[in-house]
Formats: sequence, C-alpha cells, structure tokens
Amino acid sequence: MSIDDLLNRSFIKWMDTSGPDTDIVLSSRVRLARNLSPIPFPYLLDEARGVQCMQLIQDAFAKAEEPEIKAMQIAPFDQLSSLDREILVEKHLTSPNHAASASPFRGLAVNKEGSLAVMINEEDHLRIQCLLPGLQLEQSYNLAGQVDDSLEKHLDYAFDERRGYLTSCPTNVGTGMRASVMLHLPAMVMAGQISLIFQNISQLGMTVRGLYGEGTEIIGNLYQLSNQVTMGLTEDDIINNLSIITKQMIEQERLLRQKLYKEMQYQLEDKIGRSYGILKHACVLSSNEALTLLSDVRLGVDMGIIKNIQPLTLNELEVAIRPAHLQYQAGQEMDALHRDVKRAQIIKGKLNQKQA
Amino acid sequence: MSIDDLLNRSFIKWMDTSGPDTDIVLSSRVRLARNLSPIPFPYLLDEARGVQCMQLIQDAFAKAEEPEIKAMQIAPFDQLSSLDREILVEKHLTSPNHAASASPFRGLAVNKEGSLAVMINEEDHLRIQCLLPGLQLEQSYNLAGQVDDSLEKHLDYAFDERRGYLTSCPTNVGTGMRASVMLHLPAMVMAGQISLIFQNISQLGMTVRGLYGEGTEIIGNLYQLSNQVTMGLTEDDIINNLSIITKQMIEQERLLRQKLYKEMQYQLEDKIGRSYGILKHACVLSSNEALTLLSDVRLGVDMGIIKNIQPLTLNELEVAIRPAHLQYQAGQEMDALHRDVKRAQIIKGKLNQKQA
Repeated sequence: MSIDDLLNRSFIKWMDTSGPDTDIVLSSRVRLARNLSPIPFPYLLDEARGVQCMQLIQDAFAKAEEPEIKAMQIAPFDQLSSLDREILVEKHLTSPNHAASASPFRGLAVNKEGSLAVMINEEDHLRIQCLLPGLQLEQSYNLAGQVDDSLEKHLDYAFDERRGYLTSCPTNVGTGMRASVMLHLPAMVMAGQISLIFQNISQLGMTVRGLYGEGTEIIGNLYQLSNQVTMGLTEDDIINNLSIITKQMIEQERLLRQKLYKEMQYQLEDKIGRSYGILKHACVLSSNEALTLLSDVRLGVDMGIIKNIQPLTLNELEVAIRPAHLQYQAGQEMDALHRDVKRAQIIKGKLNQKQA
Repeated sequence: MSIDDLLNRSFIKWMDTSGPDTDIVLSSRVRLARNLSPIPFPYLLDEARGVQCMQLIQDAFAKAEEPEIKAMQIAPFDQLSSLDREILVEKHLTSPNHAASASPFRGLAVNKEGSLAVMINEEDHLRIQCLLPGLQLEQSYNLAGQVDDSLEKHLDYAFDERRGYLTSCPTNVGTGMRASVMLHLPAMVMAGQISLIFQNISQLGMTVRGLYGEGTEIIGNLYQLSNQVTMGLTEDDIINNLSIITKQMIEQERLLRQKLYKEMQYQLEDKIGRSYGILKHACVLSSNEALTLLSDVRLGVDMGIIKNIQPLTLNELEVAIRPAHLQYQAGQEMDALHRDVKRAQIIKGKLNQKQA
C-alpha cells in the first residue's frame, strides 16, 4: 500500500459499521504518547536532531518483527502537499496541528486499512494510535500496544520509574494514554440533557471535545469523549472507566430515542425527513449545515425511519464533504461557494445512489 | 354530471395547463353580478321570497336553449353538508361567504368541467362566473356572457338605463363585472418589486387580493389581480385594461426570472431544491408552509429546473391540500396536527408518483 492509496480511498477501517454499538459509537481510539531518550521534545528539535529522530523511528519500523507493523507506510510531511496532509486530518488519521507544517522530520506511519496510525513528531516523538469502528476500546488498546511493544524493542523510550512515560505536555505523563470514543447523541441533545450529562462526566475525570479533537467545535451532535487523567491509573483502569461511562451513555441515548419516538413520532419523523429532503435536493451546503443535517439522517437510519441508506454511506460522507476532500476530488482549489456547491453534489450523488 | 362527481374529482377546468401563459397566469375569471326585479337583494330576502327567487332561477336554467347551460347542475346549499360547501370554495367555484350558510335558497349551478359556476343568492341573486386556465379573459367573458344572455331570456334583470345593472353593493353597479387573473409572481417578490408594482396598479383602477378573494391572505406568491371600477367603462374596456396590465406583469416576471437565474443560479436552484426536498420528505406540513414551498417548486418546474413534475400536479395540489379536501379524502374530521400529517402524505404521494 502507498500513502496515495489511502489518500484516494473513501473507506478506512473506522467507517466499518459492523462493529459493536455503531448506532451510537462511531469509533473508538486509543493513543499512546512516547518519546525517545535523550532526544529533545519535538517543539525543541532543530533540523539535525529532528532528522535523526525521524531516522531512528523509520529504522524501528523497518526492523519490526510483526509483518503488519513492518509494512506500515511512512509518509514524511515534506513529501506531501498541504492538501494531502489536510486529507489525513479529515480522515482522522492525524491532528490539525501536526499537519500544519511540511517539516522533513514530521510524518505519519499508517497501516493498510487505516486502523493504525503513528504520528511522528507531533507534540511527542511518537503518538501511536489505533482507531476502530464502534465501541472497541480494549481491542484498540491491544493493537496500539502491539505497535508500542514492537517499536520499543528498537527505540529507547523516555520513561521514569515513578512518573511513567515522559511526555511533552505534563497532562500526558504517566500512561501517555488517551482513550476516546466518538459518540452520536442527537436524542440527548433534543431532550436538553447533554450539558448536564457532560458536567457530571467531567467530575469523573473525562472530557468532551469536537469532531477533530482538542479545540474543535461540536457539530452534528458528535461528541468525542476521552479520559482527562493519564497518571495514577493503569491503562486498564482508563479503558474500563471510559467503557463503563460509554455504555451508560449508549443506554441513555437509546432510551431517549425510544421516548422521543413514542411521544413525538410525527415531529421526529418530520425533522428527520426534512433534513433528508434538504440533503437530497439542496444545491449549496456549508460543511456545518451538512453535518447537522446528516446527524438527523443518521438518527433516521439508526432508528429504521430511513430505510434505503447504509450507515457506511454516512460515515464516508462525514469525511468526503470536508474542504480538503472536496478539493482533492475536484482536482482544484475552490472558494467557499464552489466548495458548498460541490459538497451538495457529492451528498446528492451518494444519497441518491442505489444502496446495497 | 352530479355535484358529487365534481366534489370527488381532483381536476377542474382551470387546472388545465395547456392554456396561454400558464407559467405565470394560473387562471382567468370573469364574474357578472345580476339581480332579479323586483325581488329584494339577497341580504333582505325572507324565506318565502328567497325560495321564489331560487325557483325562478332554476326555471330559467331548465328553459335554457343551449344544451350546456341547460345541463348545468344546481345544488341548493341545504342539500349539501358544510364540508361539501367548503370543498366548492377550495375549488374556487364559490366564495367563503356564500358557502357559510346552508340556506335553501342559496346554491350553486355548475357545468361538467367546472369552468362555469353560477352562485345563487350570494351578495346578488346571480353571480355568473367563468373560470379558465391561463390568460383567457376574453374567452371567459364570452362564456359568462352566453350564460348571462341565456338566463336573461327567462328572467327580469334589475337594470337602469343610466346606471346599468343594479347590484347589492354599489361598487358593482354598472357592468356588474369583475374580471380577475390569478398570478404567480415569485421573481417579483424575490426582487423586492412587488409592493411598488401593486401601488402603481391600484392607481390604474385595479386591486389585488389573495387566493380566495376579498379579505384573504396572500400566500405562495399567488396574487389575484382584478378591476376595481365597474361603472363608466364598457365590459370590453375592463377586459382590455386588465389584459394589458397582465401582459406587462407577465413580461416583467419573466425578465426577472431570467435575471435571477443569470445572477444567482446556485442560490435559486438551492432555494427551489430545498423546498422540493422538504415537500417530498416532511411528515408535518401546514397549509401556509406547503403553499409557500409549492410556489418555489412551481417556479422550478416553470423554469425547467425541476423536470419530473407536471404543472397540473401543482394545480391539483393547490386544492387537494386545503382543509376540507383533506378531511373529505380522509373521510373524517381531523384536528390541525392530523391535517398537517395527512397533507404531508398527500404531497409526498403526488410528488413521488411517476409523472406522465
């Protein structure tokens, strides 16, 4: 697999809708922050040390014993266009900050199906992530852990017996782990319960972010829930806590969906129908409006109100309508109006095509 | 033909879209007010004189020499339910005031295709109307005139050599004629020109009303334009003046539609598409919202932006979604929410059905 293949493909692993609880949990992610001793943290790296760091990491992948890890493609960011890097962000494989610069010692290692991605010299030297569909935190942790173990054989990790893994930002010290789930919670929003729930959750050491992580807006009723605390807990504790809370959220969201349907069937079907109708027939759609309307359609599909759309189509659309993907597909840069027009065309095409 | 046939049918003559200028003029109507001498005007009639008046009119129809006029069905309002009478209003065959009471000497005479309708004891003893599709004021006048001439042979009209036909309301004295056209003017509204245009028109002795005549609201960009002055002009003058103004309105509306398309194609197609999408997928639609959205769809159909809907479907829908028609079709009285749900179903059904 080449990185081009991944850039061109609409499907990546997390979009698969055969995972558990995909009616509410779009994806589960585990990310491990690791740094190499004694190389300075990325924000202090000069070019010479940066290139050296990159080389050490590339060598570690090359020496990996596990065929899948050895086969991971490493794309240094100075070999990718700015648009290519934005594509990787929109596919949720890297972060906006990481993709912002074409540095020769930044880069991304990815496996074929896009479930494993290692950011090189983002905030830390390594951010090993595994992104799977549905609620699969343990599996994500296991897969990320395999990459971690494999690389560790050939790299000298910065580790302190008392503090654990040392990281660039103190909030990651310890396990270096951030586990998160992407939740679709339209019924909680409609029922006006979302703020209260997230207030309670923050008291449990959890935090909520938008679609593209830290500092990004919450759109389309998609909430990224993750652990706030990385120290004083084992990795298993973090995974367990987040899994338990996520299961409670799933149960609550499902109950509220049934309640809405029972008490306000017409209004619910109307809201969903209107959003579906607009998506199928509008000619100009902003990204935020489209994600908001797609949330209604996703709810309709998950509740069986809309029958002829596959959930996979909605996951593909969530990514395909982002600015970089639109421009990549159009083969040219586009201003906001033309992106909005192209976005409407793509949505119309996808929703009107015969679904399997 | 029985009146039941007309009540059950969705199509009546004015809905035909093969008439001239039906992209802008939905229909043309000529109405002649006539009274019988020496019977008091309807608002002064006691039951005995009312029944006598009704009998004279029924006899005149029975004696008519023209087969089409002789064949007109007379439905006395005490033989129709209140819902039936509302149906006749919604089909534009009689007025809301006329239909309000089940008086035995009120009634409606209609021909088979619904192009000729004579209101009996509305504000005047006779209101002879002809309603045709598109811009056909002369033809409407000729057909209404034939009924007028035919009935006059057997009835003694109240007529004054100086003043002309005498009518219950002084604003109708003279010709007793009101000619009107139902115009669809979305581009004038979008361009913000509509108020100015109607200010000018009122200075030319014309007046503007809503979909169901005097005192009704303007909805869905549908404007009923008619002559204000009935005295001091011949019938031909009235018809000519209104025709000339209507032709100017048609020309202006067409120019503005082209201009809109040229200057704001995406936004126009988007507005039309969204309305179409909502109509096809909403589950709860109020009458006003539906008429507003149908106006956008009508514009889309007339401009070739929406290709798979026949204009006839839109004319049928304009009537089929009104409260009495909904309840007639459902076979039961319905509250507002259930009417809105039924309305959405009917619209969805019509717009999704394969068009000829």
